[in-house]
Amino acid sequence: MPSRSDLANAIRALSMDAVQKAKSGHPGAPMGMADIAQVLWSDFLSHNPTNPDWSNRDRFVLSNGHGSMLIYSLLHLSGYDVTIDDIKNFRQMDSRTPGHPEYGYTPGVETTTGPLGQGIANAVGMALAEKVLAAQFNRDGHEIVDHHTYAFMGDGCMMEGISHEVCSLAGTLGLGKLVAFYDDNGISIDGEVEGWFTDDTVQRFESYGWQVIPRVNGHDPEEIKQAIETARENTEQPTLICCKTIIGFGSPNKEGKEDCHGAPLGDEEIKLTREKLGWTAPAFEIPADIQDAWNAQEKGKAAQAAWEEKFAAYSAEFPELAAEYTRRMAGDLPDNFDDIAEQFIKEVDAKGDTIASRKASQNSIEALAPSLPELFGGSADLAGSNLTLWSGAQGVSSADPSGNYCFYGVREFGMSAIMNGVMLHGGLKPYGATFFIFMEYARNAVRMAALMKLPLIHVYTHDSIGLGEDGPTHQPVEQLAAMRATPNLNTWRPADAVESAVSWVYALKSKETPNALVFSRQNLAHNERTPEQIANIAKGGYVLKAANGTPDAVLIATGSEVSLAVEAAAKLEAAGKNVQVVSMPCTDVFEAQSDEYKASVLPAGPKRFAIEAGAKDFWYKYVGLEGGIIGMDTFGESAPAGELFKHFGITADALVELVNSKI
Amino acid sequence: MPSRSDLANAIRALSMDAVQKAKSGHPGAPMGMADIAQVLWSDFLSHNPTNPDWSNRDRFVLSNGHGSMLIYSLLHLSGYDVTIDDIKNFRQMDSRTPGHPEYGYTPGVETTTGPLGQGIANAVGMALAEKVLAAQFNRDGHEIVDHHTYAFMGDGCMMEGISHEVCSLAGTLGLGKLVAFYDDNGISIDGEVEGWFTDDTVQRFESYGWQVIPRVNGHDPEEIKQAIETARENTEQPTLICCKTIIGFGSPNKEGKEDCHGAPLGDEEIKLTREKLGWTAPAFEIPADIQDAWNAQEKGKAAQAAWEEKFAAYSAEFPELAAEYTRRMAGDLPDNFDDIAEQFIKEVDAKGDTIASRKASQNSIEALAPSLPELFGGSADLAGSNLTLWSGAQGVSSADPSGNYCFYGVREFGMSAIMNGVMLHGGLKPYGATFFIFMEYARNAVRMAALMKLPLIHVYTHDSIGLGEDGPTHQPVEQLAAMRATPNLNTWRPADAVESAVSWVYALKSKETPNALVFSRQNLAHNERTPEQIANIAKGGYVLKAANGTPDAVLIATGSEVSLAVEAAAKLEAAGKNVQVVSMPCTDVFEAQSDEYKASVLPAGPKRFAIEAGAKDFWYKYVGLEGGIIGMDTFGESAPAGELFKHFGITADALVELVNSKI
Repeated sequence: MPSRSDLANAIRALSMDAVQKAKSGHPGAPMGMADIAQVLWSDFLSHNPTNPDWSNRDRFVLSNGHGSMLIYSLLHLSGYDVTIDDIKNFRQMDSRTPGHPEYGYTPGVETTTGPLGQGIANAVGMALAEKVLAAQFNRDGHEIVDHHTYAFMGDGCMMEGISHEVCSLAGTLGLGKLVAFYDDNGISIDGEVEGWFTDDTVQRFESYGWQVIPRVNGHDPEEIKQAIETARENTEQPTLICCKTIIGFGSPNKEGKEDCHGAPLGDEEIKLTREKLGWTAPAFEIPADIQDAWNAQEKGKAAQAAWEEKFAAYSAEFPELAAEYTRRMAGDLPDNFDDIAEQFIKEVDAKGDTIASRKASQNSIEALAPSLPELFGGSADLAGSNLTLWSGAQGVSSADPSGNYCFYGVREFGMSAIMNGVMLHGGLKPYGATFFIFMEYARNAVRMAALMKLPLIHVYTHDSIGLGEDGPTHQPVEQLAAMRATPNLNTWRPADAVESAVSWVYALKSKETPNALVFSRQNLAHNERTPEQIANIAKGGYVLKAANGTPDAVLIATGSEVSLAVEAAAKLEAAGKNVQVVSMPCTDVFEAQSDEYKASVLPAGPKRFAIEAGAKDFWYKYVGLEGGIIGMDTFGESAPAGELFKHFGITADALVELVNSKI
Repeated sequence: MPSRSDLANAIRALSMDAVQKAKSGHPGAPMGMADIAQVLWSDFLSHNPTNPDWSNRDRFVLSNGHGSMLIYSLLHLSGYDVTIDDIKNFRQMDSRTPGHPEYGYTPGVETTTGPLGQGIANAVGMALAEKVLAAQFNRDGHEIVDHHTYAFMGDGCMMEGISHEVCSLAGTLGLGKLVAFYDDNGISIDGEVEGWFTDDTVQRFESYGWQVIPRVNGHDPEEIKQAIETARENTEQPTLICCKTIIGFGSPNKEGKEDCHGAPLGDEEIKLTREKLGWTAPAFEIPADIQDAWNAQEKGKAAQAAWEEKFAAYSAEFPELAAEYTRRMAGDLPDNFDDIAEQFIKEVDAKGDTIASRKASQNSIEALAPSLPELFGGSADLAGSNLTLWSGAQGVSSADPSGNYCFYGVREFGMSAIMNGVMLHGGLKPYGATFFIFMEYARNAVRMAALMKLPLIHVYTHDSIGLGEDGPTHQPVEQLAAMRATPNLNTWRPADAVESAVSWVYALKSKETPNALVFSRQNLAHNERTPEQIANIAKGGYVLKAANGTPDAVLIATGSEVSLAVEAAAKLEAAGKNVQVVSMPCTDVFEAQSDEYKASVLPAGPKRFAIEAGAKDFWYKYVGLEGGIIGMDTFGESAPAGELFKHFGITADALVELVNSKI
């Protein structure tokens, strides 16, 4: 029977050989963490390689994602649909084994990692989701939501600020089923970390309220096993297991050095490593006894079958809860959601409120959330400004995690990456909020949601200079441009309460795209619309005021500037011009419409003019070189909002003047 | 003689009255921190209100910038050119008292704060600059660089991840003259922080190697004074003074509650607060004895005069060092820099290397840095990939801070905000590097540099899918668009070694604009140019290959795609088309050229085509609705770079086909 070392060496061999074949990659971390991974996966991890989607599986996150050959080795060895040919295709086009673990590419990869620190944040989100869902669904004697979340972290994750944000919150929320392993190898890309990283990490994590298990020898399976058992016994606190490891373990000339961090070992060194490890099998061949010892398919099927038996008993006793669990884990909306949504939009239109779109957003949540118990809200300490709370919102705490709202604290990046983890877990649909400008703190997590096709919802209020006195640090200018340039992300900037309601419904119905809903601080006037116009809001752009036949000019606007375009159109028409006004709340969604529809909104021929209280350049896409744009080229200023719009020339009169100068 | 309470109450009165008059703002923090500020400013702060630019002043940073009335009150009271009318104009257009402290708007404001956590990062940068400059310039018996940096932090700063990054590094670097005050009032916008923030902050900062002074009563001047003395005695470690305070201190009904955090107290509550504090003066009136006690003009003049005497002695003994100090603190380049730069660019052109632009960047540093001792480099743990080290680079450490390079660790946001602080301090010109995609981690600090007009240098390598196997998490797509949309930021993407050299020279000569230099991982072919063309690179865009008379088409490209445009042009010309090729390394700088020059590069009439391995939409600005764009609409993939360019259709042939389909 193979020893634990043999099993761990299988990871080392696959990792060094695959990196060598690809001529790029990171052998050091997989070789260093192989022993830890062996103990965790062989002795503890509850998962089913034949069904990576089993809802109650343990989650495993490789936060130091550059060590991707570690997870590919584990998935291949334990029997997931990751073949030896996939391993040989490491880092090649269309392979299941891209350079970093990519969610959706590889069965068993729970999240995309590589941007450091975000993996542990996703893991915190998964552990939070587990704790919340367990509180919502479990009943005495029926623990149908009951799994651990394990994460591997390197020095880079530890240095990144996001690790502070999310580990601090994990401590406060008492995420007792979260177990993180710190790969304390003393090496980062620039060399020995002692020149730039001297934290007492044990003390740091204790300050967050974690259980910390210090000084574990990361190459001693018994110590590792004992540490994991201690971690699992403590269900009140997350646990950090600090493992001293040797990067590139087994490589006689490169282990313990940065040389093995991010480059192939080289054929000669691989040969020497094989000798030192006593690994005699050729590249990409795993001896049958080792392959058998790793294979977890039968164990996984049995684990899932045992859970299914429990779930059957649960279903018998709590049929409605069971059906609801099944619906929510599948990510389906309730059957009657379309009716509820349609009715709500009608009511908003009938009311015709002139309110801030952030208030309209809160009204939307208030109206739609009661039928969506999966909705999981939050804000980065701006609930009263973002207006994310509603009458049924209940904060989640360590003691009572059954709620549907997270007070994330002043942690924008952490919030966004935790939301990614919550969404990946399944069963909850997160929305999270901050001021639009502070999207920037969270920017790469927002991108990761788009990359992973996670249909969560970002609520961003205080959308422009319209926020007024807080000044240029708080006034978005170029942020809409940055968001719109991001693939697979819908950025909405609604013009009034009706468009706000539609944007919320669209976001809730999205299956593969995150939606960012950008709302105003200030009041926005209601626009009258026909039922057809209301239906067209969900097309991202539509004719709000049609011209008589071919227009002389088309005015395009979003958000608070739609009313300026309407006003300008009235003035231009009074002067005999024939003008069409287009409201364009979401250019991303508009682009996905048919050419015919797009041409009906933006007819070829007439000059086009855009007005938006943000950076101008994006709008050349619609107005071209012949049209004109009213927008901003500079940062904002601190003053009351009304004065700022005048100061920056974002007015109906300026638009009229611009149009008259061009047609 | 006024008591310390009287002096502190002057801050409270000004703050609550100004917020009330502005009808917005944050009275809670200034009222809570008034006692701490009084002790620090009256007893310790070495500064000269009559000359806010005195180079050896202590630096004071209000990291919780929303409490801006605290600093405005201090500046007004101590005799800076901030009048009572300025205070009355709090948060109004064109005032010196914007909603958040804005660098450049108000004498005595050392940095723009408001985005939480970045102020303490700036302070770390200032303390780092002081430590480095002291090591470089001081001589036995001549301590001409010798000042403290003080920072106030709130709960928000403590929660933000960037506080982890920079305080960890400050501990490692032993910034003993950095003293931070934690305003531990237990309240953030969402209410009592215990629901979302339960860190043991003392333990946390001890884990970073800081001296921590716990449980100081923030309303007891003697305790505060003792703590500051203890902080100043320790020159080996930064100090955190944890002050228990009551937010909104003095307001009988609102103190200690979130109500007073971000809204005016109201006239009635202000009346009650006046009574409780025993403050009888009307709004915006400060009793003469209190005004006199606060006024620090004479003390400040004396402090500066004493330093000038020391500097005179230093100048006598070390005239060259003294001249160099003066030059560097003024931010002037050496007199011979233009010659050196011109010569270097000529040499690069003569060599005609085909190398990666990141390598060309390193060559530029190697050539130019020896004449610029103020150049202060660094990388977020990617020195070997960013190629930021050069033969004269010497790392800064706690024990030996005399170097010119900082190993920032895996801390992109921290690095960028520290660079802002270093630049604000004066005497050093920072450049810092990471992969271009991880600019996103630092995004808001990059914006802050642009807002503050800090001419520092961002080096971003691995600029596109050209980085290859690391895959979509590491491949920039929409990042150029985000950078170009940012006001007052020059984004360069050079096409070869010559353009790389010019971009470095341009960046080094910039006085009020940060420059982001975006470099390739892969080799880029050298382009032949006339001396005039070389001179035109610094105009941001220029004709690399002229047409014969009016062209049939203009091809615009940047970076690695310039060679594709040249290749496409050759193919089109072989087929009888007359084509102009424009290299556009920096659209921001190109926009600042004369209309005449711009028209010579991009003549009106012929259709234009852009090619860039990045998000397409930006280029409509130049090609309009009639032209065409080769670029990306999706995220990248993991594969060798050559395959990726083909996969995404970013090839010369694709460009030829596009042009042929349109002309």
